[in-house]
Amino acid sequence: MVKHAGSIFSVDVAGLETAPGQPAYARIGERIRVAIVSGALAPNVRLPSSRTLAQDLGVARNTVDWALGQLVADGYIVRRRGAGSFVAACIPERDAQPPAPKRAVIPSQAEPARRLSQRAQALQSYPGHYQPASAKAFTPSLPPGELFPRKVWNRLLIREASRPGNDYWAYGASNGLPALREAIAAHASAMRATCCSPDQVIVITSTQQAVELAGKVLADPGDRAWVEMPGYQPVQHCLRAAGLQVVQVPVDAQGLDVEAGRQLEPHARLAYVTPAHQYPLGCEMSLERRKALLSWAQQHDAYIIEDDYDGDYRYEGRPIASLQGIDEHGRVIYVGSFNKILFPGLRIAYVIVPEPLVGAFVNAKHAADGHTALLAQGVLAAFISEGHLARHLRKTRAVYDERRLAFLEEANVLADVLDFGPATAGMHVTGLFKPGHTGHLDDRAIAVEGARLGIEVHPLSKYGATDRGGLVFGFAGTSRAATRTGLQTVRQVIASFLHSA
Amino acid sequence: MVKHAGSIFSVDVAGLETAPGQPAYARIGERIRVAIVSGALAPNVRLPSSRTLAQDLGVARNTVDWALGQLVADGYIVRRRGAGSFVAACIPERDAQPPAPKRAVIPSQAEPARRLSQRAQALQSYPGHYQPASAKAFTPSLPPGELFPRKVWNRLLIREASRPGNDYWAYGASNGLPALREAIAAHASAMRATCCSPDQVIVITSTQQAVELAGKVLADPGDRAWVEMPGYQPVQHCLRAAGLQVVQVPVDAQGLDVEAGRQLEPHARLAYVTPAHQYPLGCEMSLERRKALLSWAQQHDAYIIEDDYDGDYRYEGRPIASLQGIDEHGRVIYVGSFNKILFPGLRIAYVIVPEPLVGAFVNAKHAADGHTALLAQGVLAAFISEGHLARHLRKTRAVYDERRLAFLEEANVLADVLDFGPATAGMHVTGLFKPGHTGHLDDRAIAVEGARLGIEVHPLSKYGATDRGGLVFGFAGTSRAATRTGLQTVRQVIASFLHSA
Repeated sequence: MVKHAGSIFSVDVAGLETAPGQPAYARIGERIRVAIVSGALAPNVRLPSSRTLAQDLGVARNTVDWALGQLVADGYIVRRRGAGSFVAACIPERDAQPPAPKRAVIPSQAEPARRLSQRAQALQSYPGHYQPASAKAFTPSLPPGELFPRKVWNRLLIREASRPGNDYWAYGASNGLPALREAIAAHASAMRATCCSPDQVIVITSTQQAVELAGKVLADPGDRAWVEMPGYQPVQHCLRAAGLQVVQVPVDAQGLDVEAGRQLEPHARLAYVTPAHQYPLGCEMSLERRKALLSWAQQHDAYIIEDDYDGDYRYEGRPIASLQGIDEHGRVIYVGSFNKILFPGLRIAYVIVPEPLVGAFVNAKHAADGHTALLAQGVLAAFISEGHLARHLRKTRAVYDERRLAFLEEANVLADVLDFGPATAGMHVTGLFKPGHTGHLDDRAIAVEGARLGIEVHPLSKYGATDRGGLVFGFAGTSRAATRTGLQTVRQVIASFLHSA
Repeated sequence: MVKHAGSIFSVDVAGLETAPGQPAYARIGERIRVAIVSGALAPNVRLPSSRTLAQDLGVARNTVDWALGQLVADGYIVRRRGAGSFVAACIPERDAQPPAPKRAVIPSQAEPARRLSQRAQALQSYPGHYQPASAKAFTPSLPPGELFPRKVWNRLLIREASRPGNDYWAYGASNGLPALREAIAAHASAMRATCCSPDQVIVITSTQQAVELAGKVLADPGDRAWVEMPGYQPVQHCLRAAGLQVVQVPVDAQGLDVEAGRQLEPHARLAYVTPAHQYPLGCEMSLERRKALLSWAQQHDAYIIEDDYDGDYRYEGRPIASLQGIDEHGRVIYVGSFNKILFPGLRIAYVIVPEPLVGAFVNAKHAADGHTALLAQGVLAAFISEGHLARHLRKTRAVYDERRLAFLEEANVLADVLDFGPATAGMHVTGLFKPGHTGHLDDRAIAVEGARLGIEVHPLSKYGATDRGGLVFGFAGTSRAATRTGLQTVRQVIASFLHSA
């Protein structure tokens, strides 16, 4: 069996050497996964040792270990202390079906079984088939569930659902419940200095939907859109899926480099930015850059998508107003989401759009999905207008700030390897490899090995090519104790790589 | 003031005589609305009598009456018995804002204030800014709220929301909750003879989202899609918004005319059909046509979107299995929605896609909005698996059938004017003007006048050019008493038009 397994891998990996892009460990991992999914490797079969595999495949043992580590993290393989690695008895739900067809649900599949549209192919690389996993230490942008006042929420839920004469059962307005749009307009103007009437607020489901609507309403296939580099990847996939060409504009300590953007592609129709707290670098866009971006948009009849995903969290200094608030020419599409500050399962976000575009955005929202579910809108409206949102933000801001300070203190154990970027806002902080270590260290491999050891740090390189690799740490969801042990783990992992390098 | 008002209209209408398409009453109505929205006509101002207006504008008095009737129905104008018509004190929410900007939210606006993408312009004609209105007699495809077991639903809602360890708060899988996908697969196979594994079920928000995803995944801008003619308009807008060119294929008593489609555009990538109960004509697609459609799709590597929007309601004869159930080559994207059989505010629907396309559809769903809200999915899963859906369908089927029979009986009062199409399934029935009357009767004008009198019949011509006009009646939500008086009203309206013709 082991022999059989070994041969499968060698064949597949050989076949794969020509495959594009991916690092070796990822290709090996993918092949093992396909072998498991296709049934070639039966449940409970013991795998060859990583040493044997490394020899069979002619790769470094580390490489095989990273591949296996990922498969363990994904649930395809289980390790039994002292006995080795085995194919899981029950493989992950998404693959637990007859082989041939199921392979289609592997999103990373390079060659779709059917002819797909170009836009669908543009999405093939996108890990759309998200599988929920429990948060680990440092999981970024996942609000810690224990802080959310579920009792309060459920009380409002029951009250609203059973309120006589409520209209949550019929069709709703495509732009959202008036009560919610009013609550949002008031909240955003108070917290983020936005300037709008409730009629400019359109209730949607997610930041992705905001980007998709903006791409659809303001650009046509072939048009170009600026995105931040490094930057939040899913947004780039949304834009590509909408037929746009993505122009990656470098980010520095002041945020998106508008001059660079002008040189790369002055005639872009859209620019997607995270000015309050750049993802992943954590910097805040300077006022000069904000003004430069706004005047570029005005000059070229372009629009700015302002993703204010964690603008509610700032711990030091005075928050700079939202771009939307200082936009004098109606060039900003402001995006706010409750999925990150309340809970992701909610699926309620919003856009604030310039008045002349309201009709077009509402039409697009209606065409996309009619309107957003009603009961949750009513509950959220009550949650905001009755002061629970403000209270929740105060509470989480205090807790996140504590955890942030704890993180920065504990992070000294990595001070010799990582330069930490700004940590004055948001829910994460990013450390870049010190120039001396760039080159030796593969941030993706570190992330994979970290996942094997129970932590979740994201590799900076995942967010687009940068001259330096690095690691993204979410601090908001991680207690001080977990932070300390987690950072120790990272230190060990990095040490092992530096050692083996 | 009246003079002033009169002059406004004449100017505007004069300017409009050159405007494209719309009938005169609609153009006049739109102008009056714009005058009200822009503030040129202040709240509570009395309008000239329809006779005066008709003279000022040089149109028939009926024309003015229809225009005013629509504005009354839309809430821009109120009639005070004996005193005439007045601009409403409080104009509809969507316009109740400072004039200039607000005009942008009038979806019918022909010229957008800003440069919009071609796809956004394709949506301009689409009344996306839906305003919820209470159901009237004959309102089609709105499930009667009083029949829905809200107590049961709310009990499950509370139970699920407070169930310890529930995972409705975190991110969810992009394809939906496993429990719901299993419940749907079982329900659809039992009720509609579909054939699929739960992994082929993807939970989405609405039929619109299904069409948008299919358009995106299976076609590129410029590709062609067959739609039924006459047919459900919103779907055509979704397809256009996705950059597709819509090919309108005639429908006859056997459903979509596949031969005609082949002649019009054999190389379409998609065909959207409502085989169980064609909207609006009400016919069922014959088995021959189903087979012909499937073989066309197989032959041309095209896909069929099967919208089974009210396939659960059949009152006579044996239900023909879904297209998906007899599809041997994985050519059908089956669409089911709970928004019409449970309640529209829910926003949960689903697609069943061929296995090789699952990955691509899930990627597209993820890019579109991440995933569908979780709590409602959990409640629905329980609602289905605990037998409440089956019970609700049995109950509503019996009630709808009674109302259908009552309608057909009462409809004799229109037997001399309308030929009623098949009424063996679904929630609506369509009457076509008898050949003798075609020409004299404007179904849109009748619908407008009907709305003024408190009923909601949809004009057949709204669903695409047909040689004969007609009226679409929803019977499911209308009691026998309301049916009788409603049909009397329709009779009066038609009589008045025949008389004035």
